[in-house]
Amino acid sequence: MKACILAVGSEMLTPFKVDTNSLLITERLNAIGFDVRLKAIVADDIDEIAAVVQGAIGWADVLIVTGGLGPTEDDLTREAVARVLNVTLELDEQIVSGLRERFARRGIVMSDNNRRQAMVPKGAVVLENRNGSAPGLLLRGPRTDIVLLPGPPREMTPMLDAVIRDRLSGKSQSRGLWRRTLKITGRPESEVDAVAEPVYSPWTRQAVPISTTILAALGQIELHLTASAASADEAGVALDRAVDELRGALGPSVYSVDGRPLEAVVGTMLKERGLTIAVAESCSGGLLASRLTDVPGSSAYFERGVVCYSNAAKVELLGVPDDLIRSQGAVSEPVARAMAEAVAVRARTNVGVGITGIAGPDGGTPEKPVGTVVVAVSVNGETKVRTLTLFGGRDMIKFQSAQAAMNMLRLMLA
Amino acid sequence: MKACILAVGSEMLTPFKVDTNSLLITERLNAIGFDVRLKAIVADDIDEIAAVVQGAIGWADVLIVTGGLGPTEDDLTREAVARVLNVTLELDEQIVSGLRERFARRGIVMSDNNRRQAMVPKGAVVLENRNGSAPGLLLRGPRTDIVLLPGPPREMTPMLDAVIRDRLSGKSQSRGLWRRTLKITGRPESEVDAVAEPVYSPWTRQAVPISTTILAALGQIELHLTASAASADEAGVALDRAVDELRGALGPSVYSVDGRPLEAVVGTMLKERGLTIAVAESCSGGLLASRLTDVPGSSAYFERGVVCYSNAAKVELLGVPDDLIRSQGAVSEPVARAMAEAVAVRARTNVGVGITGIAGPDGGTPEKPVGTVVVAVSVNGETKVRTLTLFGGRDMIKFQSAQAAMNMLRLMLA
Repeated sequence: MKACILAVGSEMLTPFKVDTNSLLITERLNAIGFDVRLKAIVADDIDEIAAVVQGAIGWADVLIVTGGLGPTEDDLTREAVARVLNVTLELDEQIVSGLRERFARRGIVMSDNNRRQAMVPKGAVVLENRNGSAPGLLLRGPRTDIVLLPGPPREMTPMLDAVIRDRLSGKSQSRGLWRRTLKITGRPESEVDAVAEPVYSPWTRQAVPISTTILAALGQIELHLTASAASADEAGVALDRAVDELRGALGPSVYSVDGRPLEAVVGTMLKERGLTIAVAESCSGGLLASRLTDVPGSSAYFERGVVCYSNAAKVELLGVPDDLIRSQGAVSEPVARAMAEAVAVRARTNVGVGITGIAGPDGGTPEKPVGTVVVAVSVNGETKVRTLTLFGGRDMIKFQSAQAAMNMLRLMLA
Repeated sequence: MKACILAVGSEMLTPFKVDTNSLLITERLNAIGFDVRLKAIVADDIDEIAAVVQGAIGWADVLIVTGGLGPTEDDLTREAVARVLNVTLELDEQIVSGLRERFARRGIVMSDNNRRQAMVPKGAVVLENRNGSAPGLLLRGPRTDIVLLPGPPREMTPMLDAVIRDRLSGKSQSRGLWRRTLKITGRPESEVDAVAEPVYSPWTRQAVPISTTILAALGQIELHLTASAASADEAGVALDRAVDELRGALGPSVYSVDGRPLEAVVGTMLKERGLTIAVAESCSGGLLASRLTDVPGSSAYFERGVVCYSNAAKVELLGVPDDLIRSQGAVSEPVARAMAEAVAVRARTNVGVGITGIAGPDGGTPEKPVGTVVVAVSVNGETKVRTLTLFGGRDMIKFQSAQAAMNMLRLMLA
C-alpha cells in the first residue's frame, strides 16, 4: 500500500524550515503497512496544491495533507482538494457553532473569516481537533483516501493517531514495515554493493519481503533493510536471518547492526575486555578523543588524549625523538608508531593510538599530498601501522582519520 | 522565476532522515531570484522519479534534482530524466577514465558497476565533482533547466555553487532575495528578541524590505535577515545598515555577521594578534581542540591540547597538584584555573584554556549535578574563571562547554 505526504505552506519553502511532521507521519503509516513513496511541500497556491493532489490520486492509497486549513486567504487546501475531486464546498453549521463556542469561551467574538474553516467538501468526514480551531477532513475515494490535517504538530499528532486508529488501519490488511540498519566501514560503496546485491536481491520475492537500500556516508556505508510483515515477530525472524546472511557475506567490515556508531561499538569492546585507551593525535586535532568520549561511561576506559599539533608537543608530551621527526618527517609510519606506543606507555593503558597526517588545505607536498594520514594502533605492545590516502576537505579528512583508527582497533580486538 | 527541488532516495522517506540539502539549495536559488514553489522527495523508483520530473517541466524554470547518481542498481535519476526528455543515455569515455584514475589513486581497481556513473543523457553538460565519483549533469530545456547533483552535501554544495555561478545566474531577471545572519551567544532567545524586535520590525515597510527570523540553536541564537531587492548592491546597502543597527543594540554578544562559526572568529583574533593557544580539557573530551583545529590554518596558533580525563592525567600532563584535586574536587574553580595556567606555561603559549565538569549521564552529585562545568581562560597570565550550569545530554554539554570557553576568550581579546 502506497502513501503520499503533502505539506502546504510557503513558510516551509524558506531556507530555515525543515519539515519534521512528515517523519512522525511516516512512522505511523509504516506501522500499519503503508509505504511512503512521495513527500512534497508546496506553496500556498491553489493550482500547485491541486497539481500534487491530482498526481497522488493516480497511484497513492492514502494521501495525508498537512497545513492550509486556517482561516486566512492563504489557506487553500480545502478549495484545492474540492476542485480536484470536482465536489462543492458546503458550510457545515455544526463546525460554525463549535467555532463560535470556542471563541466565546475565550471571550472573543468570532470574526467572519473563521467561517472558511467550516467549509467542507461534499462527502467529507469531519475530524475533531481538540487542540485548535481547524477541523480535519477525510475524503474516501475509489483508490485514494485523502486526509487533511492542520500543520501545528500539537494539533496534527492526536488527530493523525485517531484517524489511523479509527479509519485507516483496516485498509492495509495490517502488514507493517520494520527496519534494520547495517553499518560498514573500510570498503567502498561499489564493492559493498557488488558483494551484497546477490545476497539481498532475492529477498524482495520471499514470503516476508525485504527491500534493501544502500547509503554511502562519510567513512561508512549503510545498508537499510525494510521488511513487510504481518507482525513484529514475523519481521524480526526474517530480518535476523537477513542480517546474518549479509554479515556472512560482508565479513568483519560490518561493525554495527543496531544503529550504534563506531565509537560506541569500540567502547563496548574495550569495556567488555577490561582494556583502557589513550590517544595521541596530530591532524585529527582531538576529534578521535572527542568521539570516544561522546559515549556515556567512556571514562571507564578512556584515560587521556594528547593533541600534539606542534613538533615540540610531540617531543615534550610523548617523548617522540626529535631526530626521528627530523629524519622521517612528522607524517611518517615511524612517528605514528612512536606516538601510539608512547602514549600507551605514559598513560599506562592497554591501547595507544597515534594519528599524524596532512588535513590541508595547506601543507601538502608532491610525495605527501593533502589527505596523507598515518594511523598506528598499539594493543598490549603489538602495533599495526597503516598509511591512508583520504579525500575531501579538512573536516572530512579529520573524520575519516578517526574512523580508520577506530576501525583498526576494532579489527585488532575482534 | 519558479524553481522545483527534488530529492531522490528511499532512505529519505524513512522516519529517520530529514532533507537538509533543500535548505541550502533554496538559499542559493533565492539569491539569484528564483522562488522555490515545490520541494519533493521520491523513492528510488524510475516511474515515480519520472512523474515528478514530468510534472515540474510543465511550470518550473529550473529543477534541481539531488541523489540517485551513484553506481548501484538503485541509482535511477539519469534513466528517469532521459526517459522524460526522450533522449538516449550514452557512455562518456572521459568520465570512465576519470573514475578509473580516481580509483587507481586509492589503490583500488574500479568495479564494473561504476560505469553507470558515466552514462550521460544525450545533450547534457557534465558538471565536475571534486569531492566524489558521481559527476553532475545539466540539461537545458525550452522552459526548464534540469540540474542533476549527487546527494552528499559535501559533493553537492560546491557543484551547486559552480552551476549557479556559471550557468543559471543569468537566467532570472526578477528581484532577488539576499540574506545575512547574525550569530549571538551568551544571551537567551527571549532577551535577544526583546532587544532586537523594536529595531527590526519597521524594516518590512521600507523601500528595500527586510524580514527577520529568530532561530535558537544549541549554544547560540541566530537572526536571519532577508532583503528583497533588485540587485545585490541594493540589498547589500540595506543589509549593511540593518546589521550595524542590530550590532549597536545587541553589543558584543554578536560574534559573527558573515556566517563564520565561533572557532573561526576566535582563530582570526588569535592570528591577527600573533597569539598562540593550548587547551586542557576534561569533560569536553577534546571537542574544543577539535573545533579550534577545524579552522584551516589553525596550526599557526594552536600549539597543543591535552584531554586529561583521569586525575592521573591532570597531574602528569599538567602538574595540577594532586592535593588540590583531592581538597577541591576535580570539578572546581581552582582546578580549572590550574589547568588553564599550566597548559599555557608548559606549551609556552599566550593563551591557556581549562575545562572541567560533569557531562553525564552519571557522575552528578547534589552539590555538583550533571551539567556543572567550570571554564578558565588565561591570557598572558591573566586568568578568568566561570562556573556554568548547562542543560541537555552529554553531547550538548560538551558543545556548550567548548562554546562558552571560546566566547570567554573572544570577550577577553576584544
